[in-house]
Amino acid sequence: MSQRPITPVAQTLRAALQDKIDQKTKPPGSLGMLETIALQTGLIQDTLTPTINQPAIIVFAGDHGIAAEGLVNPFPQAVTAQMVYNFLQGGAAINVFSKLHQLNLVVVDAGVNHLFPEHEQLKNRKIAMGTQNFLHMPAMSLDQCRLALQAGAEEVQRLHEQGCNTIGFGEMGIGNTSAAALLMSHFTKIPVADCTGTGTGSNIQQLTQKKAVLQQVMNNHATPPSAEQALATFGGFEIAMICGAILEAASLKMVVVIDGFIVTSALLAAMAMEPAVRDYCVFAHCSEEQGHKAMLEFLNAKPLLQLDMRLGEGTGAALAIPLLKSATAFLNEMASFSSAQISNRTI
Amino acid sequence: MSQRPITPVAQTLRAALQDKIDQKTKPPGSLGMLETIALQTGLIQDTLTPTINQPAIIVFAGDHGIAAEGLVNPFPQAVTAQMVYNFLQGGAAINVFSKLHQLNLVVVDAGVNHLFPEHEQLKNRKIAMGTQNFLHMPAMSLDQCRLALQAGAEEVQRLHEQGCNTIGFGEMGIGNTSAAALLMSHFTKIPVADCTGTGTGSNIQQLTQKKAVLQQVMNNHATPPSAEQALATFGGFEIAMICGAILEAASLKMVVVIDGFIVTSALLAAMAMEPAVRDYCVFAHCSEEQGHKAMLEFLNAKPLLQLDMRLGEGTGAALAIPLLKSATAFLNEMASFSSAQISNRTI
Repeated sequence: MSQRPITPVAQTLRAALQDKIDQKTKPPGSLGMLETIALQTGLIQDTLTPTINQPAIIVFAGDHGIAAEGLVNPFPQAVTAQMVYNFLQGGAAINVFSKLHQLNLVVVDAGVNHLFPEHEQLKNRKIAMGTQNFLHMPAMSLDQCRLALQAGAEEVQRLHEQGCNTIGFGEMGIGNTSAAALLMSHFTKIPVADCTGTGTGSNIQQLTQKKAVLQQVMNNHATPPSAEQALATFGGFEIAMICGAILEAASLKMVVVIDGFIVTSALLAAMAMEPAVRDYCVFAHCSEEQGHKAMLEFLNAKPLLQLDMRLGEGTGAALAIPLLKSATAFLNEMASFSSAQISNRTI
Repeated sequence: MSQRPITPVAQTLRAALQDKIDQKTKPPGSLGMLETIALQTGLIQDTLTPTINQPAIIVFAGDHGIAAEGLVNPFPQAVTAQMVYNFLQGGAAINVFSKLHQLNLVVVDAGVNHLFPEHEQLKNRKIAMGTQNFLHMPAMSLDQCRLALQAGAEEVQRLHEQGCNTIGFGEMGIGNTSAAALLMSHFTKIPVADCTGTGTGSNIQQLTQKKAVLQQVMNNHATPPSAEQALATFGGFEIAMICGAILEAASLKMVVVIDGFIVTSALLAAMAMEPAVRDYCVFAHCSEEQGHKAMLEFLNAKPLLQLDMRLGEGTGAALAIPLLKSATAFLNEMASFSSAQISNRTI
């Protein structure tokens, strides 16, 4: 992991940024959440002229031992690898949105249960052929967890060196809503049943079974004594890499675009390690997945989009980036009352 | 107005569109509202491959006699003309968002209380130097209202002839939240006080005064016997032009992107004339302006964005268009389970 400290954003320019926003030719506050985003990106970048440069999405893929329990997911584990091929062929939703909104898309094999041939668009960061089944043992060793955190960090470093200052993360992993629900329960203290949703489409009977299995997982493990150990016990390789990626992006003072349920579970782990990462996060959307809304409330986070999506892959983050660009564009390009010679409020 | 009839969208392709959406490589329904939009644009364009072509925003500007009452708005009437100059100089929020999202922006003088020099980006459709004060008489004559409806329609026709198939409308007019509140009350039967909000920034005392003035307006007029007469009594020139523009766009089977409170009030008038226009409308956002949420509920409309914005100018529509493009892009470009050889649900 990076040796750079993660510090809260400097507040030096807050008043000047707010004044710049308020002098734009519009009623004060009338751009709503775009004003909040403009202020936040200005604080993150510590400038009155923040910009969204070379925005990127990294999709981390990994398999999960819990998928062996079958009923927790209606799609077979093979779909994780099949979807990675789909990403490489440009056929997934995240490919389409990245192309449309001009986002650099990187795909990382964090630990898929399949050996891929070399491919220039696939980063091989495989920790293992999927995690262990956390019903019976920790998902990964502490060493594996640290390797994953480091790998995620390095992928972010590489993009940052190329000029990227805004990054979103996505994931693919059959079974990973189970891991995210466990992490959520651990970090928020919300009972795991209330953190458990239908994932890619369980029915009521499957959901009841999934809740019972995940409660059994909680019962089978002593409370992990650190955030890293919680991540190792309940996480996935893709989730641990996202956690490392979020920490690194914050340490590099990048704008971090948080996607849905899985990515937010990685953020919960990252915040338990370094609370100041929160300052660098923009919340892209509220997922339909049960639990994400409660996660956002726990974080006191207001998401930009509420489109009833629950796809993952970073699709929510990709759709939010045009709004981030809109926010910095109004701050940089709109006229002020004085420059446009417009009468401000009379009262 | 156009002689073309406005018909409900054909339902012929509904099942085929839904099947195409469901065969994409994602859990069914997981793109949420983007799936709804993909289906709707397919039905509007009556094709399995809908596209958003040359999207445009027309901003109609007009002044309002009610501004003479002073306290209903904290900005002076001169701001309407000043903002039109700002549009022409590229300094307003709608300029910035249109440029960023590659939208063709047209500015129309519907009836501003100022004589503008000729400008290639300004369409002169001036009906009069602002409306009459509807506290004392109808805002405009029926003839003026019909001229405005026709002018709005012609502006849409011109863009359609150039290849535009998706259009949003914006407005600028000091005092126009008062007109919109009156129209809302007339068409929804909701008491005018509940339709009245703070506009560009009235305080509580001003809001109380505004509600009293608008109740007096309602008391001073007999209930208009037709939608056109309601528009003439309570409307503005920009609102009447937007109404004509919405009707024309629907008759041309364009995707109509409905912005905030003022534009939705024009839609209420358009729907009272031609209920089938509803099929062509996509709702861009829910404005912070008191009353817009109730309008959307009255229309059973679910907006794409909820960013606490209340600026007008078509800014909500401009920000929603990247989402419309995302919807048609996934429908046209994503792989299907069979084309990508991905296992569909096992159960």
